[in-house]
Amino acid sequence: MAVQTTASTTDSASGAPAPFGPAAALSCRECGTRYPLSPVFACLECFGPLEVAYDLPTGDPEALRARIEAGPTNIWRYAPLLPVPADVATKPNINPGWTKLVKADNLARELGITGGLHVKDDSGNPTHSFKDRVVAIALEAARTFGLTTLSCSSTGNLAGAVGAAASRAGLRSCVFIPHDLEAGKVVMAAVYGGELVGIEGSYDDVNRFCSELIGDPIGEGWGFVNVNLRPYYGEGSKTLAYEIAEQLGWRLPDNLVIPIASGSQLTKIDKGLKELIALGLVEDKPYKIYGAQAEGCSPVSAAFKAGHDVVRPVKPDTIAKSLAIGNPADGPYVLDIARRTGGAVEDVNDEQIVDAIKLLARTEGIFAETAGGVTVGVLKKLIESGQLDPAAETVVLNTGDGLKTLDAVAPTTGPTATIRPTLAAFREAGLA
Amino acid sequence: MAVQTTASTTDSASGAPAPFGPAAALSCRECGTRYPLSPVFACLECFGPLEVAYDLPTGDPEALRARIEAGPTNIWRYAPLLPVPADVATKPNINPGWTKLVKADNLARELGITGGLHVKDDSGNPTHSFKDRVVAIALEAARTFGLTTLSCSSTGNLAGAVGAAASRAGLRSCVFIPHDLEAGKVVMAAVYGGELVGIEGSYDDVNRFCSELIGDPIGEGWGFVNVNLRPYYGEGSKTLAYEIAEQLGWRLPDNLVIPIASGSQLTKIDKGLKELIALGLVEDKPYKIYGAQAEGCSPVSAAFKAGHDVVRPVKPDTIAKSLAIGNPADGPYVLDIARRTGGAVEDVNDEQIVDAIKLLARTEGIFAETAGGVTVGVLKKLIESGQLDPAAETVVLNTGDGLKTLDAVAPTTGPTATIRPTLAAFREAGLA
Ligand SMILES: Cc1ncc(COP(=O)(O)O)c(C=O)c1O
Ligand SMILES: Cc1ncc(COP(=O)(O)O)c(C=O)c1O
Ligand SMILES: [Zn+2]
Ligand SMILES: [Zn+2]
Repeated sequence: MAVQTTASTTDSASGAPAPFGPAAALSCRECGTRYPLSPVFACLECFGPLEVAYDLPTGDPEALRARIEAGPTNIWRYAPLLPVPADVATKPNINPGWTKLVKADNLARELGITGGLHVKDDSGNPTHSFKDRVVAIALEAARTFGLTTLSCSSTGNLAGAVGAAASRAGLRSCVFIPHDLEAGKVVMAAVYGGELVGIEGSYDDVNRFCSELIGDPIGEGWGFVNVNLRPYYGEGSKTLAYEIAEQLGWRLPDNLVIPIASGSQLTKIDKGLKELIALGLVEDKPYKIYGAQAEGCSPVSAAFKAGHDVVRPVKPDTIAKSLAIGNPADGPYVLDIARRTGGAVEDVNDEQIVDAIKLLARTEGIFAETAGGVTVGVLKKLIESGQLDPAAETVVLNTGDGLKTLDAVAPTTGPTATIRPTLAAFREAGLA
Repeated sequence: MAVQTTASTTDSASGAPAPFGPAAALSCRECGTRYPLSPVFACLECFGPLEVAYDLPTGDPEALRARIEAGPTNIWRYAPLLPVPADVATKPNINPGWTKLVKADNLARELGITGGLHVKDDSGNPTHSFKDRVVAIALEAARTFGLTTLSCSSTGNLAGAVGAAASRAGLRSCVFIPHDLEAGKVVMAAVYGGELVGIEGSYDDVNRFCSELIGDPIGEGWGFVNVNLRPYYGEGSKTLAYEIAEQLGWRLPDNLVIPIASGSQLTKIDKGLKELIALGLVEDKPYKIYGAQAEGCSPVSAAFKAGHDVVRPVKPDTIAKSLAIGNPADGPYVLDIARRTGGAVEDVNDEQIVDAIKLLARTEGIFAETAGGVTVGVLKKLIESGQLDPAAETVVLNTGDGLKTLDAVAPTTGPTATIRPTLAAFREAGLA
């Protein structure tokens, strides 16, 4: 398996790049049935989820690495491995990715990690979460399918990413969120000028409603990035795997700690890592994938610990609202990946989440949202409980931004003192 | 003038890279008196501000361009042009820069710009403002001088940048802000765990107090990034000029629209552009620099319009708190640059700032803080008043992040509707 050249991904009739680049079909994750590349997401045979299948001929990994390294400093450097046309970087999009992989020596010291620790910090994306990655690819698919409204059900970050991307591309947007999200996420989702609809209910209610909309004539011409465009959307998370490997010098870490809401991101990072090995871009070596949840919404962690293969839905109650999906679509696949790679799924409570946000800020100067508190908190717990080897090399993901979840830390984070501007006042306050 | 090689910037005795790279001295901007590279900021002869002077031998621009292009995707790619050692990228720092230069065709269309428009979007920096650039260089200087506390007076963004950088580098930090800043900026400044001191007064009071602290024994071992480290700090803004030129394919735009608080950023961008020309990295061509202020704090704009050479201090009253410096240190230099290049200084009121934030979000999917509302609003006003040629190529800066100034747009930005999750409710709300 390797990658086609730009020439071979050209539509021979028109000379235009093939709209989906190296992607060949959609394929059912359960039964393998193949479907043409279209805005569908469930198998007609077995209702299994569809994912993008590639037709990647064997090639020279050195040449592919060189081609990637010569590409733009965003996810489009990996266009040869994504369901996008070769000229994707020339079209209006939000161009996320190539975020920092931060060498986290201070945090490693505090956690007792000796094998090396990096934070993949996706708060540097255009709307400050990893969701820009998945939306960028879904947007391109929507454009190809001639869809005119970009939509989603969102726990907050996706809404902003969809709003921003639609604005840049000149599409209409209409996004759906639970009515009780954080102020930062609501304002950001609305500021791009698309429709924003608050739903009286949980994320799972929002999601169910979106499925109804797709079946209704209202939804005609709509691209729900995480429903009918989900196969394309999911591929965006592969770029996290690609970037981590490239930024480490084209090699894989031993452990990855990844947050779980629906489980899509974790599942697709695993897909990306496997592709890197299959393409010969990195040396084949084992890696362990650890999933991180908030205790107040930990259906996957609970199933992992109980040894179950299926995930029992829960009613979320946690400050990590971006991860508050009680009925995670990709839960069973996450369980499978954690077990197959020798990883685990763990959870931390709200207090531990807040402590971990502050720990990451204090040691590495990275201000994470609650989802980043979940991964860092879980990393700490995994080490303390002996589930993760501190002598191995670990990458922990921060997938969002602290400015979007201020309320998590605001009650315990503020000025040391407020004083008049005099040296006497400074001394009186005990600061000198 | 060109750039020394790594070899020639090595301290011949120790073999370690020269701590200030190609920088040769500090030099008084008024009278030219030179001083050794040290933590001083005002000329002993005339009280003029000191800036970094370089000793850049003539060289091959092609080789320098190639060296830069092979560097890291952050400001350290320009290490050969900055007062930092050649190995700066290996030390713990926040590594800002290489932010997106967004081709803003939708905004150009709305504004009637036909000559091309880009937004340089510095919200992608680690703490989401351009201040990470100046702090990264000041931190390196503090380290070289053996200073152990990193400090600043801040209108908000600088405080977060200093806190984050100090954490990464393992320095103590103590930062000073006006007590009435936006919640996002206060929490961000505090979350990194350093001391944060609210001052009962305006930014200008904070700044005065910091000058007092430096003169007092309390301030021994303190590096105030924008006071005693100001010559180094200022050089960070040059990287905006370098990146804009490189991202345009090593050429200069016709117009730049830049916000003004103290005026340091605008002044140093001009310095950077002049260096690019002197080094032969870009073709010599005229460019116009436009300064942007909020009407509620527009001392430089007022002086420009009145034809004055000096700036009369004002008491700020504007939602653009990050730009609320009533007594701007570099005001006279800004006036000089705007006049010399054929630009202008303009201001917009709070309503126009909010409208411009929304305009930028709606057209380009970029959520700017109030400072970005100021530059985009001023750009609009400059075109409408015939002061900026819409047929010329323009770059407008967004230097901060909308998530830090939510209150500016929150009252007029929210969900279109909040409904129960049913198709009937969706139709009733008039959304179908
Ligand atoms: C910040 C953040 N991290 C992680 C996730 C998890 O995403 P997934 O649904 O792919 O598991 C989300 C989902 O909304 C998120 O917002
Ligand atoms: C977002 C933002 N933009 C621009 C400026 C202007 O900086 P200067 O003082 O260099 O003029 C500031 C200063 O605080 C700022 O925070
Ligand atoms: Zn099937
Ligand atoms: Zn002087």
